[in-house]
Amino acid sequence: MSDADEAAVLAANKAFYDAFSTLDIRRMEEVWSREDVVTCVHPGWPALDGWARVMDSWERIFDGAAMMTFTITGAEATVGGGIAWVTCTENLTSVAGGRVMDAQVEATNVFCSRGGQWLLVHHHGSPVLGG
Amino acid sequence: MSDADEAAVLAANKAFYDAFSTLDIRRMEEVWSREDVVTCVHPGWPALDGWARVMDSWERIFDGAAMMTFTITGAEATVGGGIAWVTCTENLTSVAGGRVMDAQVEATNVFCSRGGQWLLVHHHGSPVLGG
Repeated sequence: MSDADEAAVLAANKAFYDAFSTLDIRRMEEVWSREDVVTCVHPGWPALDGWARVMDSWERIFDGAAMMTFTITGAEATVGGGIAWVTCTENLTSVAGGRVMDAQVEATNVFCSRGGQWLLVHHHGSPVLGG
Repeated sequence: MSDADEAAVLAANKAFYDAFSTLDIRRMEEVWSREDVVTCVHPGWPALDGWARVMDSWERIFDGAAMMTFTITGAEATVGGGIAWVTCTENLTSVAGGRVMDAQVEATNVFCSRGGQWLLVHHHGSPVLGG
């Protein structure tokens, strides 16, 4: 693992959250690896697998959210041989149906190197309850 | 990635759940890599990091649970260059304080190869809500 690899993975992680916070499905599609093995667990949801199901879920989330801001804290990347994972905390403010909601989500994001680019293959977010 | 690697990772994943279901802290210690970078997110909890904090959390969970049975479904392993991750669903029945509880937890488990052995470095479990 090099510092450069780690920086590249953290940049890919940031691109994911930038896509998330702009609610832009095209940008979200760009950060994910376009393959059937991708998986995604949204907070409180059962696991989704496959590119189509995962992208459909983001569309539904983006359609339901009027505004979404993130502060990502504690991002740590570990890289080894074409696979990397990041753990971080999503400090999230969203507006939906006229209500402002603050939430904290613990996230695990797994990236694979594809043609020199780190692409997301697995996102797992879980609600911090009772905070 | 070879089938043998994948099988070894799935065996390590099974050893983790065997340790979990027997509520045996010694067995749980054996499946984790003994290092400060390990991290753990229990369902609904904030992230814990470091061997000591993670093991302390398992002791507290084991102390509070009289019985815990698991059926693990949908376990899929991906292996690359010394890092592997597994996604699976924990179908869980536990007894605590005289109450029987059924729960479904989505899990991401990350393993690193250390001296030829796959050891757990990150566990992330999230509750499936409202199921």
